[in-house]
Amino acid sequence: MAHRSPLAPKEFPALPPVPGVRMASGACGVRYEGREDLLLVELTPGTTVAGVFTRSRMPSAPVDWCRKAVTGGAARAVVVNTGNANAFTGAAGIQAVEKTVSGACALLGCRPEEVFVASTGVIAEKMDPAPIVSALPGLRDKLRDDAWEAAATAIMTTDTFPKGASRSAVIDGRPVVLSGIAKGAGMIAPDMATMLAFVFTDAALPAGVLETCLRPAADKSFNAVSVDGDTSTSDTVLLFATGAGADHPPITSLGDPRLRDFRRKLTELLIDLAQQIVRDGEGASKFATITVTGAASARAARRIARAIADSPLVKTAIAGADANWGRIVMAVGKAGERAERDRLAIHIGGVRVAENGTAVPGYDEAPVAAHMKGREVEIAVDVGVGRGRATVWTCDLTEEYIRINADYRS
Amino acid sequence: MAHRSPLAPKEFPALPPVPGVRMASGACGVRYEGREDLLLVELTPGTTVAGVFTRSRMPSAPVDWCRKAVTGGAARAVVVNTGNANAFTGAAGIQAVEKTVSGACALLGCRPEEVFVASTGVIAEKMDPAPIVSALPGLRDKLRDDAWEAAATAIMTTDTFPKGASRSAVIDGRPVVLSGIAKGAGMIAPDMATMLAFVFTDAALPAGVLETCLRPAADKSFNAVSVDGDTSTSDTVLLFATGAGADHPPITSLGDPRLRDFRRKLTELLIDLAQQIVRDGEGASKFATITVTGAASARAARRIARAIADSPLVKTAIAGADANWGRIVMAVGKAGERAERDRLAIHIGGVRVAENGTAVPGYDEAPVAAHMKGREVEIAVDVGVGRGRATVWTCDLTEEYIRINADYRS
Repeated sequence: MAHRSPLAPKEFPALPPVPGVRMASGACGVRYEGREDLLLVELTPGTTVAGVFTRSRMPSAPVDWCRKAVTGGAARAVVVNTGNANAFTGAAGIQAVEKTVSGACALLGCRPEEVFVASTGVIAEKMDPAPIVSALPGLRDKLRDDAWEAAATAIMTTDTFPKGASRSAVIDGRPVVLSGIAKGAGMIAPDMATMLAFVFTDAALPAGVLETCLRPAADKSFNAVSVDGDTSTSDTVLLFATGAGADHPPITSLGDPRLRDFRRKLTELLIDLAQQIVRDGEGASKFATITVTGAASARAARRIARAIADSPLVKTAIAGADANWGRIVMAVGKAGERAERDRLAIHIGGVRVAENGTAVPGYDEAPVAAHMKGREVEIAVDVGVGRGRATVWTCDLTEEYIRINADYRS
Repeated sequence: MAHRSPLAPKEFPALPPVPGVRMASGACGVRYEGREDLLLVELTPGTTVAGVFTRSRMPSAPVDWCRKAVTGGAARAVVVNTGNANAFTGAAGIQAVEKTVSGACALLGCRPEEVFVASTGVIAEKMDPAPIVSALPGLRDKLRDDAWEAAATAIMTTDTFPKGASRSAVIDGRPVVLSGIAKGAGMIAPDMATMLAFVFTDAALPAGVLETCLRPAADKSFNAVSVDGDTSTSDTVLLFATGAGADHPPITSLGDPRLRDFRRKLTELLIDLAQQIVRDGEGASKFATITVTGAASARAARRIARAIADSPLVKTAIAGADANWGRIVMAVGKAGERAERDRLAIHIGGVRVAENGTAVPGYDEAPVAAHMKGREVEIAVDVGVGRGRATVWTCDLTEEYIRINADYRS
């Protein structure tokens, strides 16, 4: 790809294989010529699954399917295509999912509810599943346990770099591995960019336990990033646990303290992936961390942080390296959560610029201006009413974002 | 001014004088050189007032002042300065308001709570009231009843054209006049653009009655427009009724049916001003009307319409003349209100493009594409659950918006 985000990591990280997980990607031609647009992941029998999905009232057909299938708690395959989101496609969309699922079942000898599908691309265009179904046998023949970068690349749409992350964790003193891939650029451009993440571990965990690990981790990661405040019809995060080769003792209790490290590392991994999505935000030139403290609750803090992160005026100020923190005051004011104007404090790059509801007299603007010129911008706001805190990661809003989105389909 | 919005009206409308209202503008030099930045309006004794103000939790000192003063229901003067919003200025901000008010009181022989002030401009910079107070006597000496265009021009910040509107109405068969001015570009750039509107009538109405006329009219106008979804610290709408020369019988009941025409014309006038603000939206090249029907309630319809109007992806699609209505589906989905995906219908420029949750088979794209290329875009969405409806007016999001806001203060 010609353009690569200036915020991209140097290279794709080394991801260890996860026992019980094999993958293959290829080109089936749903939309793009000359690039891979299909991913098949095979999971060993006994694999459990948990998922979180878009809160959109207009979910895609694959999201409808996965939301239902995940209640079974078992997984044998994942099929992901790009080029068409199979969203807002009515009855034809459901049929396309069913045909894809049938193809995978025939190939791997599993039940339909063990097959998870995700589609990302154009909305509201009917998707023909035939090229996908035809391509699956070829992919099955080249399944490997180490094709992470190819897999992460095959699920890209407007992404400018493939996204992956891994962590190792211990459960009751025994090591397990977590490896995952994600895509998304624009949180979330519905047209060709949608947040998808697939994370795999060899831990042996029942689906119910997996679910209690995934939900809070997703909340602290994918629900704490924003590129443009738009929400996709297709957002999907799936966590699979193969249990293959894991030798930790059985964990069946939802609140088992032996899961502490696993939960922590899962959260880290998801934050890593979520931040990579922000770093690939459409047109992004800067990565910003917004921390809000002193709010009435964690939820209030999150809402205030999001109001700052989503404000076009704050985002354009960041783009322009302008320490125009009056716009931060504005965003706090519009969030609708309790905030004490006359106790409000703001730090930019660690420098206190406002306190007690007004500018800090004679603060040194030079280090603030220098900080704003960097690639990483840190904004901290204390709203002076309580102990709630939250962090949200976002990017700036640039002319490039407009160029990308004002002339997309042509 | 060099640049004038392509959506601006041909010329400033002819506004009739309102008996009991005189005005004068001048240059006091709060911030700008060589342009008028101060407006004084004198109101005849007996004038009543009602106001609606920003919902921001970070209101400016003038908003704090007006919100309190308006409870007295009487008005003798309005003082408006541009260049400095006197927002987030702590105790110094309150003192600046008090000094301005004292100056006006001394000049006109009235009580402090009869003086209304508004400031628009940079946030969080201390404002010296001395130049304002010094300039007031000079303005008093040149008060006129027909200086509407100069008044509307003096309150501009990043506005590219002055905004005014008038209507005549009848109360119990007797004519009254309404004339008003507004400013704002960007709904609402907190830095130098804030929505202010001042409307005057010669009707003789108690403050309580005026209030019940203003609130629903403001809700259908200023609360139904959006440029960038940001909310100012300073938004102020004030309605003054002088009673000067009005010969309609006394109206004292809040729900008096004889006010029907007055209410209707007031709403029309505020919609006119509010739409002028959208037409001067920062960087705007197109004016869009978003109508939502079939929602669970009017409030739900408004929220869905705003989600569409505020979506950066919808706004950039409008900018690019791209009939990419998948983004409208996305915005409906994220609004959080009830909507039936499989009954959703979308019209663009009167052409039905989606129905029953998917694209209309073989609809003619040519008239839709032609409509999207025009200056005025009409989007109608039926969400298929109830009878709630709402209309919101907005503009597109262009590279020019980014240029204006990413490099503002320099």
